[in-house]
Amino acid sequence: MIFMGFAFLYTFLKRYGYSGTSFNFLLGAIAVQWAILARGLIFAIIPHGVFGPFPLDISSLVVADFNAATVLISFGAVIGKCSPLQLIVMLLLELVFANVNEYLGIELLQVADIGGSMFIHAFGAYFGMAVSRVLFRESQTKSDKLANSYTNDLFSLAGTVFLWCFWPSFNGVLATDQGRMFAIINTYFSLAACVVVTVAISSLVDKHGKLEMVYIQNATLAGGVVVGTTANMPIQPWLAMLLGSLAGLISTIGYRYLSPSLEKKLKLHDPAGVNNLHGMPGILGGLGGVLVAFITSFSLVVLDIFPAMAPVDNSTLLQEIHSNFTGVVAGMGRTGAEQGGYQLAALVLTLVLAIVGGIVTGFVMRLPVLDPPEPDMMYNDADYWHMPDEEDELIKPSV
Amino acid sequence: MIFMGFAFLYTFLKRYGYSGTSFNFLLGAIAVQWAILARGLIFAIIPHGVFGPFPLDISSLVVADFNAATVLISFGAVIGKCSPLQLIVMLLLELVFANVNEYLGIELLQVADIGGSMFIHAFGAYFGMAVSRVLFRESQTKSDKLANSYTNDLFSLAGTVFLWCFWPSFNGVLATDQGRMFAIINTYFSLAACVVVTVAISSLVDKHGKLEMVYIQNATLAGGVVVGTTANMPIQPWLAMLLGSLAGLISTIGYRYLSPSLEKKLKLHDPAGVNNLHGMPGILGGLGGVLVAFITSFSLVVLDIFPAMAPVDNSTLLQEIHSNFTGVVAGMGRTGAEQGGYQLAALVLTLVLAIVGGIVTGFVMRLPVLDPPEPDMMYNDADYWHMPDEEDELIKPSV
Amino acid sequence: MIFMGFAFLYTFLKRYGYSGTSFNFLLGAIAVQWAILARGLIFAIIPHGVFGPFPLDISSLVVADFNAATVLISFGAVIGKCSPLQLIVMLLLELVFANVNEYLGIELLQVADIGGSMFIHAFGAYFGMAVSRVLFRESQTKSDKLANSYTNDLFSLAGTVFLWCFWPSFNGVLATDQGRMFAIINTYFSLAACVVVTVAISSLVDKHGKLEMVYIQNATLAGGVVVGTTANMPIQPWLAMLLGSLAGLISTIGYRYLSPSLEKKLKLHDPAGVNNLHGMPGILGGLGGVLVAFITSFSLVVLDIFPAMAPVDNSTLLQEIHSNFTGVVAGMGRTGAEQGGYQLAALVLTLVLAIVGGIVTGFVMRLPVLDPPEPDMMYNDADYWHMPDEEDELIKPSV
Repeated sequence: MIFMGFAFLYTFLKRYGYSGTSFNFLLGAIAVQWAILARGLIFAIIPHGVFGPFPLDISSLVVADFNAATVLISFGAVIGKCSPLQLIVMLLLELVFANVNEYLGIELLQVADIGGSMFIHAFGAYFGMAVSRVLFRESQTKSDKLANSYTNDLFSLAGTVFLWCFWPSFNGVLATDQGRMFAIINTYFSLAACVVVTVAISSLVDKHGKLEMVYIQNATLAGGVVVGTTANMPIQPWLAMLLGSLAGLISTIGYRYLSPSLEKKLKLHDPAGVNNLHGMPGILGGLGGVLVAFITSFSLVVLDIFPAMAPVDNSTLLQEIHSNFTGVVAGMGRTGAEQGGYQLAALVLTLVLAIVGGIVTGFVMRLPVLDPPEPDMMYNDADYWHMPDEEDELIKPSV
Repeated sequence: MIFMGFAFLYTFLKRYGYSGTSFNFLLGAIAVQWAILARGLIFAIIPHGVFGPFPLDISSLVVADFNAATVLISFGAVIGKCSPLQLIVMLLLELVFANVNEYLGIELLQVADIGGSMFIHAFGAYFGMAVSRVLFRESQTKSDKLANSYTNDLFSLAGTVFLWCFWPSFNGVLATDQGRMFAIINTYFSLAACVVVTVAISSLVDKHGKLEMVYIQNATLAGGVVVGTTANMPIQPWLAMLLGSLAGLISTIGYRYLSPSLEKKLKLHDPAGVNNLHGMPGILGGLGGVLVAFITSFSLVVLDIFPAMAPVDNSTLLQEIHSNFTGVVAGMGRTGAEQGGYQLAALVLTLVLAIVGGIVTGFVMRLPVLDPPEPDMMYNDADYWHMPDEEDELIKPSV
Repeated sequence: MIFMGFAFLYTFLKRYGYSGTSFNFLLGAIAVQWAILARGLIFAIIPHGVFGPFPLDISSLVVADFNAATVLISFGAVIGKCSPLQLIVMLLLELVFANVNEYLGIELLQVADIGGSMFIHAFGAYFGMAVSRVLFRESQTKSDKLANSYTNDLFSLAGTVFLWCFWPSFNGVLATDQGRMFAIINTYFSLAACVVVTVAISSLVDKHGKLEMVYIQNATLAGGVVVGTTANMPIQPWLAMLLGSLAGLISTIGYRYLSPSLEKKLKLHDPAGVNNLHGMPGILGGLGGVLVAFITSFSLVVLDIFPAMAPVDNSTLLQEIHSNFTGVVAGMGRTGAEQGGYQLAALVLTLVLAIVGGIVTGFVMRLPVLDPPEPDMMYNDADYWHMPDEEDELIKPSV
């Protein structure tokens, strides 16, 4: 489903609909295969030193889809500016960095991030931005093809509505039992609040009070990103709505004021605005997780969410719990404040690895052998596709 | 899913694709939030006099989605003729009327309407028509922008096929066990029969035998509306197909002959034809419920569908049943004919409340403070949106 | 869901978007109704000589959807060249042939084909090709409307991505327990590998290294077709990926070289390329089933997949098994090699019945009473539809 939504969200460039959709499809298909290999190596084989086959189940496929989402987010920062070969190289390197980051976060720091505010959205956005910065050339921001069109905007909006409808399922799919119900309800409220705030702010920031399609296509989804970390936690609907509203606010403001200024001052060119949709809301979502952990005190309910808060092995508390509930696994006896600190550490680590990984990857992508597009061929399907209006016998669908 | 389908069904106006889709999205997002509050007040708080928090679960979200559908149906009757502010006022008032109606129907009259032929479709359609009548101005019917285009029609047809595919799930989602299986099978057959009849009638009523896209986009869905009341009842496939065929027939005839005549004679202007798609098939569906109740005699099977037909408390019959099945709850001891009468009463009440509520709401919406659009700005995205062909720095997607 | 995907896949012709989508919708709706009747007659009534009602459940609806898919595949071979009446006649005859074939394959030959590589894809493709051959006229290949356009290609690609996302569910829906998990994982890997190979081959076979949208829209799906027979079998991911890669290879090569040559030499005109997407990958999938059966030796695990390999009634082996597992049903005691032989026989029978059935049906469809389109009206919506640019009062959506 992720494929479907992103495929259409990325049709927005008026002469890049074929490529936006198809390269998205190609990258997604390679990413799920490489993700399964890379994750098997990083999670199952290298840490345990056991070389051999690793098991697969439906949740492996879901995790591979989430890995593909990370790559497709980064694609938004470089859309139209890279050749397919460059994109494949980016994908191959990015998923190594992303899975090392997730391994450190989940296995060593033992943090919670059920819907991936940090590991998917923030990582994907800042990795892509770092790559975009390394590849920056002045000509990238000046193309007359860097514009949208009416029909392409409708396709893109189809992608938005599609992602919006399925987001509660994304955030809930890896949660269990009650956590899944919370994930669906929290994401639903956050997304609903975010749409309202986005439309209101879009109208307020314009001098004629008119709406801007780009904001509606993107900032409305920030509400799904922002509850990625806290989705399965028993927060109240008002907190979910507050997070969604804040996400809509910073995302819209980001599109309106921050992106043009980043482009001018820092040469950070971000055609799909991934910093606004995934980056800042992802950081906000990660901070939300820090806050929720910080104010959480130990109870049986939180063990499902923060297993590291379970009492340590052989402790009196654990023995007491075991006399009533046999299933509880020993943890690290963290307090809420400690868990909050680890959540914050994971967020910082994510940003550092994303930016460093993106810079390294960007320099690799500049190798001439990867066939980077000429300046006048950017954002242009005609560089890679037989176009329907060309006079060519290949055009007939039957051939 | 409702959002996705309606969003694209409402792209049909050639210069109103941005607004049709986006206002639909905005209204849906506000509606689900307001529906949860309004329903909490009307169902949980006011009748019991208990002020305080009310519980939420996944079925609350489903019901809120259904409430959003009611509003989006009414939107079809005023599409292109109202400002966003007017639409939001309509939404806020409509959901109060709709939930009072549903409370009276379900809690007091104890009627069955699992897929909402009455409470969603008929209510939404006649509420919207009443609003449209109050807002009527001659200029609304004369705009050259009140027309479709090839690409927009394809988007709209995507919405149709999407709604068609998911309709069996809509009608089944709130049913349980065997009722859900019936709902899926009955809706499937009704929809399939409806498509065939719609295409046949479309061709017959045209003087050249040509097909009309508007009928195919809309009347094909009437088969889902018409089994909304009876979906979970153990009716035979032939009855579902008969209902679907009748719905396709009256809906197509409605688009061809009735709508132009209502517009001329009664000043009822209905750009999306909600009377044909939701109104008349909704009434027919409600009458189908009356008929099925009328011919039903008491058995254990019907208790799931018409709980008011269960024997009254302390009756001999109930004690006899309890000796075998402990789970049966006491009811009101209604006969089938009595239940049919109550179903009819609920249908009439729905129509009265929809029309009265719509008229009241329409007068509120005429307040000048709500910024109604100028006649030449109707059905026109340019009144509310930055358009891609405008020369404006905001157009670039990165900004 | 099948409807949604095919509806958009078949928008690719630039002047046939209305018809491609709507006739697809109409055929699908008739097909599910006729499939339920025809299957009831062929599977439940005629063999047992019992005339009377037959039971329906959700899996009947799924099977009817699969029957609709068979018809819609054949539609791809004659798209734009037949009147609606001709298409309906094709549908009615095709589903009789298809269900006789499936009855012989499943009930008599007792072969496995969970996702329909043989019974759906190969049958539908070669039936449609045979019809297309009988209806061949030189003018069909020369129309200037037999071409795609940018917007229609994007719609069509939406159909591709949609089908791609749902294919694992198609192949898994009729499998049970562990077989369903295998079906989802195998289909997922096959599809992912197929996309990569398709893009690579598309670029290699072009003299400028450019991509061709037609290949991406179609050949990427061959990976779903090719594992239709073996989906629920415990094959390793590498075999699924190998099958998917081979399917992508032959499908792309087919579009590039085989279709033009079939058209010139054998007058086999195939506008949607069903031979490449469904025909050859379907045969390959059937052969994959032969191979897997051939190398399978008896174990309890295979009984779910090849029930005919269970020991015969009253055999010592069966009694031994029954002492541990009571649920095992007696079979025909086939060896793996024998089962492989029967799988091959079913594949050959499918091809024979498809081609013979298609030829017979093609001759029936040539009857002038079925109103075949004039040569200059082929691939043209204007023959059947009121078009938005016509000056006609019917065009206004409210009428």
